Amino acid sequence: MSMDKVTMMTLLCDFYGQLLTKRQQKFIELYYGNDYSLGEIAENYGVSRQAVYDTLKRAESTLRNYERKLGLIDKFLKQRNKLAEAARLLEEHNKNSPGRIARAREILQEILEMDRG
Amino acid sequence: MSMDKVTMMTLLCDFYGQLLTKRQQKFIELYYGNDYSLGEIAENYGVSRQAVYDTLKRAESTLRNYERKLGLIDKFLKQRNKLAEAARLLEEHNKNSPGRIARAREILQEILEMDRG
Repeated sequence: MSMDKVTMMTLLCDFYGQLLTKRQQKFIELYYGNDYSLGEIAENYGVSRQAVYDTLKRAESTLRNYERKLGLIDKFLKQRNKLAEAARLLEEHNKNSPGRIARAREILQEILEMDRG
Repeated sequence: MSMDKVTMMTLLCDFYGQLLTKRQQKFIELYYGNDYSLGEIAENYGVSRQAVYDTLKRAESTLRNYERKLGLIDKFLKQRNKLAEAARLLEEHNKNSPGRIARAREILQEILEMDRG
């Protein structure tokens, strides 16, 4: 599946971010989450631009390695597609059916919302 | 939630087993999956009973540590409960409604089955 870099890094961090060092987590957050440049992070932390770049590359490689081994994001995305399909079917059906289906739809919606933590 | 040891170890291995050494994975599979005794594993691998015990303890501690940091099993179990509830509601409803809901139910069932895959 195609996915932009920021979305993929966000997912990788959602799943495996706690396995990185605090500094790696922080740099990723600033670079991918807050759109800081390498130079801005370097300046804020009193390190070279190259050091920031290396830290980000190493962190990304670590995260991808966890996903290569565990494949939990791949599984999560497949489930999410199926859930979305089920929710859509129920959504369409809901117009002329009460109670129980509506509740099922709510539950599916809750699951879709809790997925991303 | 309460859960027996074997079930919990199976879940831990499903999620994080690939992060263990091959030997750790094998010993866990034999001990928890195939009900081998420590002594039997020791004999098969030409090591002491104590070495088998230590390997299992270390592996278990590693797995629990990943779950403590990432919490993916906890999240998975909560989702699973919600999915099961939604599936049950749809199941009961299904008796007097065709097509679309039945398909949604199938999808939920597929998800429930792929969870442990």
